[in-house]
Amino acid sequence: MISQTPQAPYYAVIFTSIRTAGDDGYGDMAAEMGKLAAGQEGYLGVESARNEIGITVSYWTSLEAIKNWKAVSRHRLAQQYGQQKWYQSYKVRICLVERDYEF
Amino acid sequence: MISQTPQAPYYAVIFTSIRTAGDDGYGDMAAEMGKLAAGQEGYLGVESARNEIGITVSYWTSLEAIKNWKAVSRHRLAQQYGQQKWYQSYKVRICLVERDYEF
Repeated sequence: MISQTPQAPYYAVIFTSIRTAGDDGYGDMAAEMGKLAAGQEGYLGVESARNEIGITVSYWTSLEAIKNWKAVSRHRLAQQYGQQKWYQSYKVRICLVERDYEF
Repeated sequence: MISQTPQAPYYAVIFTSIRTAGDDGYGDMAAEMGKLAAGQEGYLGVESARNEIGITVSYWTSLEAIKNWKAVSRHRLAQQYGQQKWYQSYKVRICLVERDYEF
């Protein structure tokens, strides 16, 4: 679903990744992280799609909110497993959304 | 593929969309736009994935480069067809990438 974010400015985290083969607990953890993120202060929404690469964009009110989410202990464990098991490679981009429009 | 963008800051355009049913010339135009964008001044790369929603993130050196790409006549035609035929809805977010890191 396309996130109904508030009027800009707000923040986006673009997470682009290439998975390893197999699930190995990834699906369950991804679902758990989706719920956990949605409960965080400053969370505005998430959009996600995957074919050859996966792109997950999460939206936040502030850099502070992004930093806090990165530090949540269960999320830190997920990041650790991500590097050990689930991702061949990924890139994270922290962005200020300056303007948006829709159709 | 994950785009090998230069050191931040640079710009990202997050294009999130929901397609209509059927192809109706969409695939050909998408391929053509991919090539055309890649030849634009200030283009840095693109990442794209689609399941229920599609997310295409293109990267640019400046707001000027983004504005110029939006105004390319063949791209304007694609935008018009997009609203007439290919997309139920979409959202475009213009972002300043402030920081990035990778694994």
